[in-house]
Amino acid sequence: MAIAYPHFTGSQKSAMETGMISSPSSSSPSRTPVILTQDELKKIAAYKAVEYVESGMVLGLGTGSTAKHAVDRIGELLRQGKLKNIVGIPTSKMTHEQAVSLGIPLSDLDSCPTVDLAIDGADEVDPYLNLVKGRGGSLLREKMVEGACKKFVVIVDESKLVNYLGGSGLAMPVEIVPFCWKFTAQRLQMLFEESGCVAKLRTYQNGEPFVTDNMNYIVELYFKREIGDLKVASDAILRLAGVVEHGMFIDMATTLIVAGKCGVIVKDKWDSANHRS
Amino acid sequence: MAIAYPHFTGSQKSAMETGMISSPSSSSPSRTPVILTQDELKKIAAYKAVEYVESGMVLGLGTGSTAKHAVDRIGELLRQGKLKNIVGIPTSKMTHEQAVSLGIPLSDLDSCPTVDLAIDGADEVDPYLNLVKGRGGSLLREKMVEGACKKFVVIVDESKLVNYLGGSGLAMPVEIVPFCWKFTAQRLQMLFEESGCVAKLRTYQNGEPFVTDNMNYIVELYFKREIGDLKVASDAILRLAGVVEHGMFIDMATTLIVAGKCGVIVKDKWDSANHRS
Repeated sequence: MAIAYPHFTGSQKSAMETGMISSPSSSSPSRTPVILTQDELKKIAAYKAVEYVESGMVLGLGTGSTAKHAVDRIGELLRQGKLKNIVGIPTSKMTHEQAVSLGIPLSDLDSCPTVDLAIDGADEVDPYLNLVKGRGGSLLREKMVEGACKKFVVIVDESKLVNYLGGSGLAMPVEIVPFCWKFTAQRLQMLFEESGCVAKLRTYQNGEPFVTDNMNYIVELYFKREIGDLKVASDAILRLAGVVEHGMFIDMATTLIVAGKCGVIVKDKWDSANHRS
Repeated sequence: MAIAYPHFTGSQKSAMETGMISSPSSSSPSRTPVILTQDELKKIAAYKAVEYVESGMVLGLGTGSTAKHAVDRIGELLRQGKLKNIVGIPTSKMTHEQAVSLGIPLSDLDSCPTVDLAIDGADEVDPYLNLVKGRGGSLLREKMVEGACKKFVVIVDESKLVNYLGGSGLAMPVEIVPFCWKFTAQRLQMLFEESGCVAKLRTYQNGEPFVTDNMNYIVELYFKREIGDLKVASDAILRLAGVVEHGMFIDMATTLIVAGKCGVIVKDKWDSANHRS
């Protein structure tokens, strides 16, 4: 089942939220509905994305609970001989370790500056396929790898769909240098004062600052209202000395795969672009 | 001697380059000209800048061979009791150590987010007081501190004056994360392809990558031609994932002090702004 749809409307989301997927083996009207967990939905989206992978590709390997399923699946297909000559570019140390354990041959952007396809999850997806990423802490390496891709397939369960970035009420992460992080966090909060922004340092459970693979900190921005033009917001954040990168991935995803209780929806960028114009 | 001048013209630079400063003690026509070294010129500019310092100020303390003279002078005036209640915000670990050794009380941007005055050197200064900084490797902390200043006095010897940034033929540094630095360096070079840009990793003499106070690398950009609109160039650099900060300080300096063989020239931003409009 692959349906391209132009926009997330309230009714579509509502239908996805209330629906249930049919058991694949059932075909009669008396079939038993199967309620899938969020993790099963993530797996469905991930497996669907791996259908885009072809032998010989250089692949960006995402990070997080959804991308993990895709990396597992790629490893499985390699082991079965159904995929050959894959080179993976991991987007985090964690994914690097996972891929090594699965026997996926790896390289990096220095050796392979052009990536055929990347598959990764997202924390939020807006109707134009703009994303918030990085709640897993790997936004910088993800942005480097996924910015070098010909095709970037985003895989999410339906809970990640939002009408605007920040709309989930959850954090938009910004990677900053540790030097005077309070000062930088304060400036970030001031930048989005009109959106009711609150900036908080990401910490481990013991209260120590969370440290990224690049030895930086993460400031999490919470918004009460929309932040307006995303490209303007992006430039404003990046102009702050002390900021390394932010978690908004604007105009980067080329395909979105959403697994919901009603099934899997595939949306290509051009559907979104047509809708926007 | 404090002359505000609106623009560096070829003839002005030439006059400064060929001139010699008179010995302060001489007044007769037969006075003996004293040829000053570059370091003496740096010291003259630094001492002139310290005249802006008042007791009770929070001071941004620059990094590099010229700024070092200013920090020394501030320490001297504190010791003599001519300055009191100064709080210094160092822009590098090196300046931190120097200030500690001089007994200058120190703080940081987290505790003192507003800085009254910063004094620092620059590698290049264009006619509009835009700067290239960071050949000393401290561009990020310098930009954080000097971006938080009410007044930012730049001190240089006349060799640092250029008609456009990059015009000295020396490096414009960009701080980047070590992860896949070759890829980032390549993208930086491509960004300024039309300006004949060549990107090189800064290394120590033993060939190992130079590491900044923030544990990052520095890529040095060399330009054959002007890079055009500086703000456009700045945003383009900052949008590259992997870039932390660059060495162009645009619209940040409020006062420039140039020590040349003909004397000291003080130029305020509004002179430049008037000229530009």
